[in-house]
Amino acid sequence: MATTFVHGGTVVSSTGAQELDVLIDGETIVALLAPGSVSLAADLKTSADVVIDATGKYVIPGGVDGHTHMEMPFGGTFASDTFETGTRAAAWGGTTTIVDFAIQTPGQRVQDTLAQWHDKAAGRCAIDYGFHQIIGDVTDDSLKAMSELVSEGVTSFKLFMAYPGVFYSDDGKILRAMQSAAETGALLMMHAENGIAIDVLVAQSIARGDTAPYFHGTSRPWQLEEEATHRAIMLADVTGAPLYVVHVSAKQALEQIAQARGNGQNVFAETCPQYLYLSLEEQLGAPGFEGAKWVCSTPLRSRAEGHQDELWRYLRTGDVATVSTDHCPFCMKDQKEMGIGDFSKIPNGIGSVEHRIDLMFQGVKSGKITLEKWVDVCCTTPARMFGMYPRKGVISPGADADIVIYDPNGHTSIGVEKTHHMNMDYSAYEGFEIDGHVDTVMSRGRVIVDSGSYSGTAGHGRFVRRDLSQNLI
Amino acid sequence: MATTFVHGGTVVSSTGAQELDVLIDGETIVALLAPGSVSLAADLKTSADVVIDATGKYVIPGGVDGHTHMEMPFGGTFASDTFETGTRAAAWGGTTTIVDFAIQTPGQRVQDTLAQWHDKAAGRCAIDYGFHQIIGDVTDDSLKAMSELVSEGVTSFKLFMAYPGVFYSDDGKILRAMQSAAETGALLMMHAENGIAIDVLVAQSIARGDTAPYFHGTSRPWQLEEEATHRAIMLADVTGAPLYVVHVSAKQALEQIAQARGNGQNVFAETCPQYLYLSLEEQLGAPGFEGAKWVCSTPLRSRAEGHQDELWRYLRTGDVATVSTDHCPFCMKDQKEMGIGDFSKIPNGIGSVEHRIDLMFQGVKSGKITLEKWVDVCCTTPARMFGMYPRKGVISPGADADIVIYDPNGHTSIGVEKTHHMNMDYSAYEGFEIDGHVDTVMSRGRVIVDSGSYSGTAGHGRFVRRDLSQNLI
Amino acid sequence: MATTFVHGGTVVSSTGAQELDVLIDGETIVALLAPGSVSLAADLKTSADVVIDATGKYVIPGGVDGHTHMEMPFGGTFASDTFETGTRAAAWGGTTTIVDFAIQTPGQRVQDTLAQWHDKAAGRCAIDYGFHQIIGDVTDDSLKAMSELVSEGVTSFKLFMAYPGVFYSDDGKILRAMQSAAETGALLMMHAENGIAIDVLVAQSIARGDTAPYFHGTSRPWQLEEEATHRAIMLADVTGAPLYVVHVSAKQALEQIAQARGNGQNVFAETCPQYLYLSLEEQLGAPGFEGAKWVCSTPLRSRAEGHQDELWRYLRTGDVATVSTDHCPFCMKDQKEMGIGDFSKIPNGIGSVEHRIDLMFQGVKSGKITLEKWVDVCCTTPARMFGMYPRKGVISPGADADIVIYDPNGHTSIGVEKTHHMNMDYSAYEGFEIDGHVDTVMSRGRVIVDSGSYSGTAGHGRFVRRDLSQNLI
Amino acid sequence: MATTFVHGGTVVSSTGAQELDVLIDGETIVALLAPGSVSLAADLKTSADVVIDATGKYVIPGGVDGHTHMEMPFGGTFASDTFETGTRAAAWGGTTTIVDFAIQTPGQRVQDTLAQWHDKAAGRCAIDYGFHQIIGDVTDDSLKAMSELVSEGVTSFKLFMAYPGVFYSDDGKILRAMQSAAETGALLMMHAENGIAIDVLVAQSIARGDTAPYFHGTSRPWQLEEEATHRAIMLADVTGAPLYVVHVSAKQALEQIAQARGNGQNVFAETCPQYLYLSLEEQLGAPGFEGAKWVCSTPLRSRAEGHQDELWRYLRTGDVATVSTDHCPFCMKDQKEMGIGDFSKIPNGIGSVEHRIDLMFQGVKSGKITLEKWVDVCCTTPARMFGMYPRKGVISPGADADIVIYDPNGHTSIGVEKTHHMNMDYSAYEGFEIDGHVDTVMSRGRVIVDSGSYSGTAGHGRFVRRDLSQNLI
Repeated sequence: MATTFVHGGTVVSSTGAQELDVLIDGETIVALLAPGSVSLAADLKTSADVVIDATGKYVIPGGVDGHTHMEMPFGGTFASDTFETGTRAAAWGGTTTIVDFAIQTPGQRVQDTLAQWHDKAAGRCAIDYGFHQIIGDVTDDSLKAMSELVSEGVTSFKLFMAYPGVFYSDDGKILRAMQSAAETGALLMMHAENGIAIDVLVAQSIARGDTAPYFHGTSRPWQLEEEATHRAIMLADVTGAPLYVVHVSAKQALEQIAQARGNGQNVFAETCPQYLYLSLEEQLGAPGFEGAKWVCSTPLRSRAEGHQDELWRYLRTGDVATVSTDHCPFCMKDQKEMGIGDFSKIPNGIGSVEHRIDLMFQGVKSGKITLEKWVDVCCTTPARMFGMYPRKGVISPGADADIVIYDPNGHTSIGVEKTHHMNMDYSAYEGFEIDGHVDTVMSRGRVIVDSGSYSGTAGHGRFVRRDLSQNLI
Repeated sequence: MATTFVHGGTVVSSTGAQELDVLIDGETIVALLAPGSVSLAADLKTSADVVIDATGKYVIPGGVDGHTHMEMPFGGTFASDTFETGTRAAAWGGTTTIVDFAIQTPGQRVQDTLAQWHDKAAGRCAIDYGFHQIIGDVTDDSLKAMSELVSEGVTSFKLFMAYPGVFYSDDGKILRAMQSAAETGALLMMHAENGIAIDVLVAQSIARGDTAPYFHGTSRPWQLEEEATHRAIMLADVTGAPLYVVHVSAKQALEQIAQARGNGQNVFAETCPQYLYLSLEEQLGAPGFEGAKWVCSTPLRSRAEGHQDELWRYLRTGDVATVSTDHCPFCMKDQKEMGIGDFSKIPNGIGSVEHRIDLMFQGVKSGKITLEKWVDVCCTTPARMFGMYPRKGVISPGADADIVIYDPNGHTSIGVEKTHHMNMDYSAYEGFEIDGHVDTVMSRGRVIVDSGSYSGTAGHGRFVRRDLSQNLI
Repeated sequence: MATTFVHGGTVVSSTGAQELDVLIDGETIVALLAPGSVSLAADLKTSADVVIDATGKYVIPGGVDGHTHMEMPFGGTFASDTFETGTRAAAWGGTTTIVDFAIQTPGQRVQDTLAQWHDKAAGRCAIDYGFHQIIGDVTDDSLKAMSELVSEGVTSFKLFMAYPGVFYSDDGKILRAMQSAAETGALLMMHAENGIAIDVLVAQSIARGDTAPYFHGTSRPWQLEEEATHRAIMLADVTGAPLYVVHVSAKQALEQIAQARGNGQNVFAETCPQYLYLSLEEQLGAPGFEGAKWVCSTPLRSRAEGHQDELWRYLRTGDVATVSTDHCPFCMKDQKEMGIGDFSKIPNGIGSVEHRIDLMFQGVKSGKITLEKWVDVCCTTPARMFGMYPRKGVISPGADADIVIYDPNGHTSIGVEKTHHMNMDYSAYEGFEIDGHVDTVMSRGRVIVDSGSYSGTAGHGRFVRRDLSQNLI
Repeated sequence: MATTFVHGGTVVSSTGAQELDVLIDGETIVALLAPGSVSLAADLKTSADVVIDATGKYVIPGGVDGHTHMEMPFGGTFASDTFETGTRAAAWGGTTTIVDFAIQTPGQRVQDTLAQWHDKAAGRCAIDYGFHQIIGDVTDDSLKAMSELVSEGVTSFKLFMAYPGVFYSDDGKILRAMQSAAETGALLMMHAENGIAIDVLVAQSIARGDTAPYFHGTSRPWQLEEEATHRAIMLADVTGAPLYVVHVSAKQALEQIAQARGNGQNVFAETCPQYLYLSLEEQLGAPGFEGAKWVCSTPLRSRAEGHQDELWRYLRTGDVATVSTDHCPFCMKDQKEMGIGDFSKIPNGIGSVEHRIDLMFQGVKSGKITLEKWVDVCCTTPARMFGMYPRKGVISPGADADIVIYDPNGHTSIGVEKTHHMNMDYSAYEGFEIDGHVDTVMSRGRVIVDSGSYSGTAGHGRFVRRDLSQNLI
């Protein structure tokens, strides 16, 4: 197999940055070398099949996006990115692993739904992928399936406290699923919003004539996210299950998580770039139906209330463990438009699998987080959280050669007419300017993006059998 | 220079464990290799001058003990370990770097005292060493010296809220020193006990006839540690100085630190094995004068109040950043005995520079912390905290080849008649049994301990010029 | 009408104690007088129809028990005290007002159920009584009824987060009821336990063969009370409803309430003597089926976990507002016995309407609360909380002459064979000794208990139309 | 002696409001009567020497201002109100009791200083007065004096953590004074600001040229009030002393107090109208030297930081126990002007003894506090806190006839040219409009203010021997 030698770059890990050369043999990193170390590095450079000069650039682990929904069915339509288009866009943005969600709904066998998702993804992905399993119907059979799936490399299970009648589980079902997770060591993921109460507020809002996208936000007040988060924490505490709260957007929900973590409970928070950058007032409150672009749940929060700044703070303190995208794109045309005149009919979701690494790097540039934290929340901790470390999430011998060469002096303009490879007819970050650039992306030793051109292939990406979470304390 | 090849072991870092081979060239790690990676590893193994088989063992960074007091003057005597005996004992225990304290007392030029400490250490140390500078007299001159020392690689400065008349600084002086630290980016270290109030309680205790070692503990109630900790945090907040609170023993003090950290303030806690394992009732309260062995400040805390368990919890949550020893040994004979009949005359200090790595590994064995956390708090975070990363604290190409090969199936019995190389006539951990063993220790590429024999030399250890803390958020 | 003159006693209020004479004209207190104040007091004493010497005793407002369930239907049986027997027992114990619960269950018109309860109580009560309304079926009709009842003097409405299929309301229904309460200013009372999750644990416990009364407690862990409490607080916060959490037994639930109160939210806690004195280990864990005597929900909590002491503390801090009994007696024979072999079939409830004033006075004697706090939590705050002040709950001109003369030097032995007037075949406090005694009880000017003899009559008690809560901040 | 009958008014207490008639005999309230109660009230009205019609008005206990400094020496001058002018102004504003401070400074005998203050006040006061004792020099003699003074009716002792070299006590002295307070049950009052650190910031500010009054505020950041408050709480916890923190202005300091109170510690907070209404930006930051009018310590806090709103909240939650004035007036001319060009030379103090009742009533009008809370924090709790209840602070038989008839439909304009009886050449509240009016003020049965005219006399006021605090839990 071919060898690749990446030299001159600064390798960044969760704990620091260092000039190191990287030797890749086939799909795997086989050596890290001190640059200029005796003759060894020189020899290797000479003998390598491919030599990449990363001088002046960061060499970071390929991004791990722990939360995507490719071609997900929702409200009578499907998320607009397929595994093919979505993973290609991810690659463009420096993400080399996604963990998507297989979805069981009431009446379905869990294993069947997982098989469906395997079918959808197999042979189509540009990068590696794993699956979480959504349990939409907690039954004795489903609980058995949860145990079985762990041995098939699906080690995390998502439940919903929102969306009654669709994905919703009541607290008794959650309790039982958590008991199962505690037993196997699987990670219980939770969409923590009080959907029962929210549905009342939504109906009241529509009945009042408050039907614009903005009211999607006001119908889901922070209290109902904080509440559900607290409830999930307590149920997890009763059972001993490790808990991962997805797409946290309310600072008060994070405060609950921070308290649980302070108590030594295995509770983890994920947030997404939209909650760090966008707001209820500016985006959801855009004129006319424009706000529909940013209808997602949990909703964007009020900037006046300071959620965004607090979320950055919780990133710094470590109470937010990971940044994923919750990539779930819908086009305005025909999709988001279903909710004109009734925000509750707008498909929920924002697509940004392509921009996560860039958007978070901008946080480094603006002094909100350190360089190490950038790599940690985008790559290393997601890999550990979801049982893929050290195969993913770190530049280390033995790891898959998933590598991003990032130019801190480059520039990226986000916009539909600019860099935009997702299958969406708008960009949630139109006009954002990033002071950095994803130059080169390798997936398992193969360069799939370089100098603005794409050389990946559908089907290169493989399913990743995941271990139990490696992030527990 | 000679090359060394360590193969077959499991390299542990803050984020995970992995089988990796390590190539050392002279004093430096030059390569990490996936075992069995093509022919490269085999070639290197063949060509290496020294080959070490670490199969079945952990390969960890040499320990970094951020808090020692070799031959420190205290109360008319000196800590009983010299830089020579103390660093040798450290080496035996898997610690390859210490950061000791140069001490300025009132009337002295800071630079002169640092020079004295350089003199004491130079040519005598078995392992590398750095210095913190104690500022016992905050004056305009001292403040200027603080700036200068940063450029000489002394980037952390310790003040005392305890010991009035000796090291004590009042809050105005602390404020000024913190302003200086905020300006240069230096780390402000604090002995956080309200010494003014404690001295009243001590005098009252002695006057009452409560003169045994046990009353050393009761004269220093947790409230006066918690209070001083909170005060230091607030003064740091006013100034913007990063704060490192040394030897925290009260759970309530840690709660204050955890809160400050939750607010995003750069506040860090250190604890020591004695506070994790030993207690007021069992050790300080030993019959007769026996308790003198464990007279140190902050004092051992009550097990009934649960401090020990809470400290382990705070290690897990990350609110305790580092574990050091506060190694400050005094013999019972002639030294501790000075306080017979008056605990306030007992020299304060416990020696354990030799046992830190073992004692903390026992925490892994007993399920209190993870393997990664062990390496993190003993090696990596101390190195980052004190500006020595990645030269120290990590197994990585480019790093100093400070390496410990630790056998998780070995055994270590602690006791004066067993493994005891510190210059003390007792062991603070007499009778402790450890389910692991420091097999081999390398300092900058040289094996100094192996298979129970010591091959180090006084003077091998070099002064480490430290950068600013790399642990700030 | 007759006048009564009570002299020589020490009148106790929420803010202090004072020697005062009390003049009663008919049913009403008409004057308070400084003893020996000119000739006025002497004249009044001379001219009074009845003169009561309270020298050396406390003169306190008649007790207000805000939470009783006379002849309540539950699990196929009825609470064993009727309004007649229950209010008579209350009178014996110094309680002169109860607020009982009218119960609507699914399918019933709220107004009809209130009418039923009026029928049950009318003409049978020894003391005055009011009603809370339980809303077991939140519908548009029920919400309208909530508004109407406020004008009929029923100003508080109780919902259940426990007992699915019986009284349970889901969070959407709770939200709607709270919106109604916020609009009218009514008080929303909540049984805060996560019944959905509890029912799973109960079924699992029974299935495991853990069927004894003790497992009633372990199936209702504190987390599920804390959780529901927090949830109720958040739903109240969304709506603006004032919230009163009934029978709080877990210290963690109280911590949630204390936090909400600290934020300035109108959230109030009630506890009961059983949670202050009794425990999971000692009572619920009694041998055989004995523990059934103390099966109630929320359950008795673990003494090892320290709930009881913490509850006393929260009384002192004011975070517990009121002490009621949740009087809901069932006999062991035929009633509690229904649950032999299956704790889930044991009727839930403890009777103690007779002992509240005594039990809480013992808290004064043992130094846990002050004299003023005793009166405050047993009389004054319940009266204010439920909109009956100053007619009830205070010794003041204009107030109903509901007066208890309490002898702090008397003695009361609790036990079925001793003082026991409740219709129960056991006492939950058998063997308790109280260092005080209810000497004389007046209800609206009439002596109904005196010197160990009862002179009340069924039907003396009248319905109290209540105003909105007077305790809001 | 003469009798007075006040009828038709609404008597307000801490727990409620009620129409009641009040009969006064000589200096004492002797009866409260239900209006129209049989013939009794009519007879009394007929026979009374003086009849006052309070119809439509509130009848409240005379205000108790627990914190005044009449003619206090400070920085080479004296507070501009004498006991004569100050207590007259207090009477105008509805305050009928003050507790002033006798001041011991280093070298003085405590008893001598108390005697001096007795001399200053005796024969000059329009209303009753008590003394706290400032201990400026904690010595063995002073500690003995603390015990003696308790039996002389001086039961509260103030220490300073601010003003080094003047009133300052170090933590050892504080500890000893608290031990004494814990022993006798006396209340320890604390000026909680870290004066040692503040003096450094003040000197730096002056040295920088930041000499305007505004910089008085910025030199005393909230952290240094919060810190000292926390420290005082911990020292109190070590000793068991009840603690009363005077003039709290920082919300963070109140949070510390709220936490201690939540733990059940006897810690109480006082605030003053200036901290509720005025701010750093608006008043201290007034142009030129104008801000000097509001130079006091603790300083006015930033409105942008939200201290004022939070203080109102803490009033509602009960964490602020009392509202006093810290009345310490200095004229601009010759006094405040001493600090032109150097804010540190501006005498610290604001005068408002005349306006407290009005300003707090405005809080009722604006919905910030309830009517009961108004009376509680201005009258009842100060009386209980300082051991004067039920003689002061309540409308009750047996109490001193200190009564204010307050017209909620009246109006008061504050300003030097309007209602202003304090000896100050400016008003700190110039231009404030109050929607209420102090109509009539009685001191021990004598009308001293009525319908805008003053009929009091210097010397009517008597020294109040106080008991220990009645507010402990």
